[in-house]
Amino acid sequence: MNQVIETILQHRSIRRFENRPLTDEQIRTIVECAQAASTSSYVQAYSIIGVKDPEKKRKLAELAGNQSYVEHNGHFFVFCADFHRHELIGELEGKDVLPSLESTEKFMVALIDTALAAQNAAIAAESMGLGICYIGGLRNNLPEVCQLLNIPKRVIPLFGLAVGYPAQTPDPKPRLPFEHVYHEDEYNQDRARFLEQLQRYNETVSAYYEQRTNGRRRDTWTGQMADTLSRQVRMYMKEFVEGKGFNLR
Amino acid sequence: MNQVIETILQHRSIRRFENRPLTDEQIRTIVECAQAASTSSYVQAYSIIGVKDPEKKRKLAELAGNQSYVEHNGHFFVFCADFHRHELIGELEGKDVLPSLESTEKFMVALIDTALAAQNAAIAAESMGLGICYIGGLRNNLPEVCQLLNIPKRVIPLFGLAVGYPAQTPDPKPRLPFEHVYHEDEYNQDRARFLEQLQRYNETVSAYYEQRTNGRRRDTWTGQMADTLSRQVRMYMKEFVEGKGFNLR
Repeated sequence: MNQVIETILQHRSIRRFENRPLTDEQIRTIVECAQAASTSSYVQAYSIIGVKDPEKKRKLAELAGNQSYVEHNGHFFVFCADFHRHELIGELEGKDVLPSLESTEKFMVALIDTALAAQNAAIAAESMGLGICYIGGLRNNLPEVCQLLNIPKRVIPLFGLAVGYPAQTPDPKPRLPFEHVYHEDEYNQDRARFLEQLQRYNETVSAYYEQRTNGRRRDTWTGQMADTLSRQVRMYMKEFVEGKGFNLR
Repeated sequence: MNQVIETILQHRSIRRFENRPLTDEQIRTIVECAQAASTSSYVQAYSIIGVKDPEKKRKLAELAGNQSYVEHNGHFFVFCADFHRHELIGELEGKDVLPSLESTEKFMVALIDTALAAQNAAIAAESMGLGICYIGGLRNNLPEVCQLLNIPKRVIPLFGLAVGYPAQTPDPKPRLPFEHVYHEDEYNQDRARFLEQLQRYNETVSAYYEQRTNGRRRDTWTGQMADTLSRQVRMYMKEFVEGKGFNLR
């Protein structure tokens, strides 16, 4: 196993960091690694905002649902889907790019581009001995995040990435069985097989929680998912992304 | 610079592969690396289909716009956003999860989850001496891709990933200037600065193409983007993803 695979397989989210900022050189390396990711037709449809201002970090932590590690970390990145520059390019080159930029296809392109870049950043940071945590909680209140970070039209903050020196060492969380996620030649729709795999995975997840909490918690994965997904959260999102000029046609 | 950062920065897409299949062990490692990526609220909203059947690969290559490297490679993965299992879980646990699964928020979650996993797969493969190329061309005709791979409702193939032993060594493509992509504390909307950066980048990109083509090609990035984005492609996508049960509310 090489160092890359080792780094990837050792991933666990870190939610407590030392009070030690990243250097500008570390930040630059992480961003350059993000930029090295593949990008659909070379569009590079993302921007990254690094937040250092303590007051802004405090406010973001609050907006993300009082997650202290959004405020206290080595550096906080906000990854944004971004067609703002492409709109300017349309003007500059005298071409009508808006119908394309506003399509659901390009919404998908921007999301995928941004996520590929972010994962490179995450892996690069982890390879430097840093820990990371993605912060989807930023999407709780994107209008306020946009205001706080002066984010223009055609730019959507998708998630944060808290990075820093780990002050905890949680265990990696067990993933779905390989056979459940990986299909060969076609999607295997065999329901009985599927349910058996989920049952087996529930046992793995229960054992994981039981061990971590000295027996106080015995969640199953399917129970957790049903609870989470029966709550309707961030239902303003469709209107919000449309207002930003995405996903319109 | 450690091996991880080196691997990430050396990325270039490979579009010609040796005729040498990946081993099952290599495939398993790549998929397990994909699964180790962060996932929003633990939902793991993706599946991966590995295509070995030569006839299916030939057909996928054709659907992707006659890209030969979709047919000829070491292995071909199709990365799918997937809430099929979550719908079953709702039935199993007696909870109504559909309004949540059908939201634009969860559409974004599934796309981001899938892309994070895919980028882990890409980096893992590259660390093993393999080359990769993302295949967005699969989205040219998703209804046929779904039929070919027996893909159910609430599953959308997002892109392919061709992996194999490289039979070419292209140069990495230059990325946007660091300062153009990375903002500090807020999004810098200074238009003059923005245009100056794009101008500088155009020169870099032109020089790259000129050198690669012995002077036959001198594209600028903004010119390329304006051309690409003034074409409306895959405009069926909104209707298609809604038909699959995503992005509805």
